[in-house]
Amino acid sequence: MEIKLMKNILGANDELAALNRKHFAECGVVVMNLMGSPGSGKTTLLEKTLARLADKIKIAVIEGDLFTAKDAERIERAGIDVIQINTAGGCHLDAAMIQKACASLDLNSLDLLIVENVGNLVCPAEFDIGENFKAVVLSITEGDDKPLKYPLIFKESAAAVLNKIDLLPFTNFDLQSARTDLTTLHPTIKIFETSCTRGTGLDEWTQWLLERTVR
Amino acid sequence: MEIKLMKNILGANDELAALNRKHFAECGVVVMNLMGSPGSGKTTLLEKTLARLADKIKIAVIEGDLFTAKDAERIERAGIDVIQINTAGGCHLDAAMIQKACASLDLNSLDLLIVENVGNLVCPAEFDIGENFKAVVLSITEGDDKPLKYPLIFKESAAAVLNKIDLLPFTNFDLQSARTDLTTLHPTIKIFETSCTRGTGLDEWTQWLLERTVR
Repeated sequence: MEIKLMKNILGANDELAALNRKHFAECGVVVMNLMGSPGSGKTTLLEKTLARLADKIKIAVIEGDLFTAKDAERIERAGIDVIQINTAGGCHLDAAMIQKACASLDLNSLDLLIVENVGNLVCPAEFDIGENFKAVVLSITEGDDKPLKYPLIFKESAAAVLNKIDLLPFTNFDLQSARTDLTTLHPTIKIFETSCTRGTGLDEWTQWLLERTVR
Repeated sequence: MEIKLMKNILGANDELAALNRKHFAECGVVVMNLMGSPGSGKTTLLEKTLARLADKIKIAVIEGDLFTAKDAERIERAGIDVIQINTAGGCHLDAAMIQKACASLDLNSLDLLIVENVGNLVCPAEFDIGENFKAVVLSITEGDDKPLKYPLIFKESAAAVLNKIDLLPFTNFDLQSARTDLTTLHPTIKIFETSCTRGTGLDEWTQWLLERTVR
């Protein structure tokens, strides 16, 4: 019974996501759904990304969190329009939440809308929000076994950002093994190795993002 | 509507969890529900815990994962009875899964049953499985903002294990701030600082676990 209910919920979400996607296309805005575990470094990556792209394209951010506006406050400090969604305990963003949040944004003026999803490697991957593409942040300290243990999110994502690469020497993370697993799960996935504290790999990542935005 | 369905699902789960709890008490086994983000170090902590306690008390483990038996294989190598639950994409363990898994265990012979939940800071905290107490592993590399961002799991847990403490010098994690937030959320929470690679804090953690088991 739980499975059937889940199917109904997902079906209704898919319909709304399709409407969002159509609306985004009409407004000429590209939407990225940014996902990853709690503490993988999504918000810090976002701060660094905005600092590199804000003078090139017009960007807004939607921040998804269970509670608190901590992440939205960090983005706002970068001078970027940001909408906070608090899920009040909910484990993912859905299409209805995005539709509602977008009512407060001038989508026609934007080139790129980045949605930072709730920190979670499972549920966010199951809910289409109408994005153009997904990206997943996996920090080195989480371990190289995560792609095979949480395959859906890596199958769904156009890019995987292996973050906190500066901590590689202090862990037993096997970079080659992770790359092999990622490519096995998703042969066309684009893999970046980044360190937001050192600045490593951020040019490649933002260049890729820019190419996907300006079309 | 989604909220109402969720309430029904949680209600049914609570009933089954109460039955599990009664059964565990009759068998004289203490059950710990071990939770935390993907990559927080739950399985490694478990390996170190088993190595310290296996000659003192009789322990079995239930491993929850979406797919793969990677963690169960690691526990089995420690010579401990382990049951793998694959949730096939599901984001948490529930009372029915635990009831089914326990049918393969001789609960009467056990002192402690450790359930390693799916890596997720959100959903596992919402589903009672009939455990005696919960514990949450938070790795230093995840950031000190996690207790306030994911409050339920810290409110529900009898202990918080601040793991990978050896990586503290390489992060901006504020230990005092995290401790203050944890205690604000949950005044009686027991906080441990551990490093499984260095062996730090493991004696204190296993001693606490032992005291909660042998009564």
